[in-house]
Amino acid sequence: MRVLKTSLLAVLLVLLATPVYAGETEQRRFPVPQTVSPELRELIGGRPFPFWNVHPQNAAEWNTFVETIADAVKTGLPQLQEQMQVTVTPGTVAGVPVFTVAPRIPQPENTQRILLHFHGGGYVLNPGEAGTPEAVLMAGFGGFTVLSVDYRMAPDFPYPAALDDAMAVYRELLKTVPAENIGVFGSSTGGGMTLALALRAKKEGLPLPAALAPGTPWTDLSKTGDSYYTNEGVDNMLVSYDGWLADAAKFYAGEHDLKDPLLSPVYGDVTGFPPTLLTSGTRDLFLSNTVRMHLKLRQAGVFADLIVFEGMSHTQYHMNPNAPETRFHFTELAKFFHKHLE
Amino acid sequence: MRVLKTSLLAVLLVLLATPVYAGETEQRRFPVPQTVSPELRELIGGRPFPFWNVHPQNAAEWNTFVETIADAVKTGLPQLQEQMQVTVTPGTVAGVPVFTVAPRIPQPENTQRILLHFHGGGYVLNPGEAGTPEAVLMAGFGGFTVLSVDYRMAPDFPYPAALDDAMAVYRELLKTVPAENIGVFGSSTGGGMTLALALRAKKEGLPLPAALAPGTPWTDLSKTGDSYYTNEGVDNMLVSYDGWLADAAKFYAGEHDLKDPLLSPVYGDVTGFPPTLLTSGTRDLFLSNTVRMHLKLRQAGVFADLIVFEGMSHTQYHMNPNAPETRFHFTELAKFFHKHLE
Repeated sequence: MRVLKTSLLAVLLVLLATPVYAGETEQRRFPVPQTVSPELRELIGGRPFPFWNVHPQNAAEWNTFVETIADAVKTGLPQLQEQMQVTVTPGTVAGVPVFTVAPRIPQPENTQRILLHFHGGGYVLNPGEAGTPEAVLMAGFGGFTVLSVDYRMAPDFPYPAALDDAMAVYRELLKTVPAENIGVFGSSTGGGMTLALALRAKKEGLPLPAALAPGTPWTDLSKTGDSYYTNEGVDNMLVSYDGWLADAAKFYAGEHDLKDPLLSPVYGDVTGFPPTLLTSGTRDLFLSNTVRMHLKLRQAGVFADLIVFEGMSHTQYHMNPNAPETRFHFTELAKFFHKHLE
Repeated sequence: MRVLKTSLLAVLLVLLATPVYAGETEQRRFPVPQTVSPELRELIGGRPFPFWNVHPQNAAEWNTFVETIADAVKTGLPQLQEQMQVTVTPGTVAGVPVFTVAPRIPQPENTQRILLHFHGGGYVLNPGEAGTPEAVLMAGFGGFTVLSVDYRMAPDFPYPAALDDAMAVYRELLKTVPAENIGVFGSSTGGGMTLALALRAKKEGLPLPAALAPGTPWTDLSKTGDSYYTNEGVDNMLVSYDGWLADAAKFYAGEHDLKDPLLSPVYGDVTGFPPTLLTSGTRDLFLSNTVRMHLKLRQAGVFADLIVFEGMSHTQYHMNPNAPETRFHFTELAKFFHKHLE
């Protein structure tokens, strides 16, 4: 993680010198809570994500933005894989690039099970192996084999490309693994895709996965939901809807309505969904995205569980593998999948 | 409810003319979310609770404060009881005044079960029948018989008077009802007491209730926890720790440490607790009080469920019996108790 931090710092210095990345912070400051671990305190007390307010103006600027962050993430991967004792194998499923992330010591009860993973990044960030850290943590802490999908992204490939890739992999998987043995998870955009996949599988008459674990899912791509306002400038990861995120939503949606249920699953019909565990934090810009979905699931009679981390901004439960909150999060997910997968 | 509102308005006008009640509002304004019911929108968009920053200076001023609010609440009770189709019968259990709140049409599956209720109000507010509205909603929406405890309060009776009364009633109840048939619930201070009762029952070697449902519980009487800061002025019910609430904490604690687990249950050892359902809202000043407790319970291996309402400030799920969120809340509690009580 130190490696990751150092490289992020280097990237930050380069990018802060580039006018397009010079965003305003507008952060509302509060004391760092003492009610969380020292590791999480460090994240909560950290400066806002330096790129939250970038607005790339053309393909070249998007590429620079995406590649800079991907490079920083990838620098930390070998150490993370070592610490988590997992192997990462690239491949393709139904023509879609994937990474199979497996514990070095397989857990016997999980040999017939598989978790499908969709990474976060607003449908624009974290291509290739940069999308795998969360899958690595899940395989490491949870002992599951994880198939992490390197889906196509905006601006080059708008909706429904990402979801088409997700569905192609899921359909292929169903040929050899019963739906009862498949769990799906992911954070932020990956959480939104987890829910959108279930909506579309239902629509297409496919069997639904046995369980879903969307972490702080992007369930509403429009700026609708209370915490987009109340946690604006409180969350130090996303900071505001009106940064790069708003651009990403538009690029991904293209001609489609931002509130189409397959883009914003909170508007979907979730009747008959499998058990679902959602995660968020009290400072999370997506707290409302999370709790609105949770309430909607429960109102539809779905078994829906919720964890809200104290003081936490968006996705900080997978930022530091040494934080006890990280271990707790992935252990809770593992327990949940153990309970609901055949 | 219209009656209740009208009388609250009258009370407000009287009290705003009294210098001791003229608090600063310091409210941070955000748009009223459209992601909740019209009834809840009205509550979220309402002015801050006019008494949030009162600081009564002597017994007479406390009495005026307490009685004014109690009178306003009591004015609305007959209509609420009628709407909820319940009967309310005063009595005593182990010398402690209680109200038995029962559905007019008893539900056969609940005849052997009882719910113990502790009202909110910072250990100072809602004496007598003013403490019963939440019990009325639970009996009405859930079909349970509820025993609502009119425990002694500060400043006249500091800790442990309230908890002693709670324990006396629980101990007496155990003589005729098995613990497996008893559920305990309450909001705010009532949620804190629900948890403190379980801690003390455990300490005294008594059997624990079958299930607990603390709503936005006051689990930390000290100003510790992130949302005391991040939701200050966002929550329009409590508004801030530093209003009447801080005084109430000191009056109740007396010579005792605010962080004593029987005053602030988040510091207690919750191993072996029964299934627990917690409720809060995204704007709730007690959001951290709620999620810290939830995390602590899960870390101890307790089955702990969580509902966080979109856009909601402190305890607004029991402010308007016509809000769909109110029905949802009490229906969820009823399902939970049905599942976990014998």
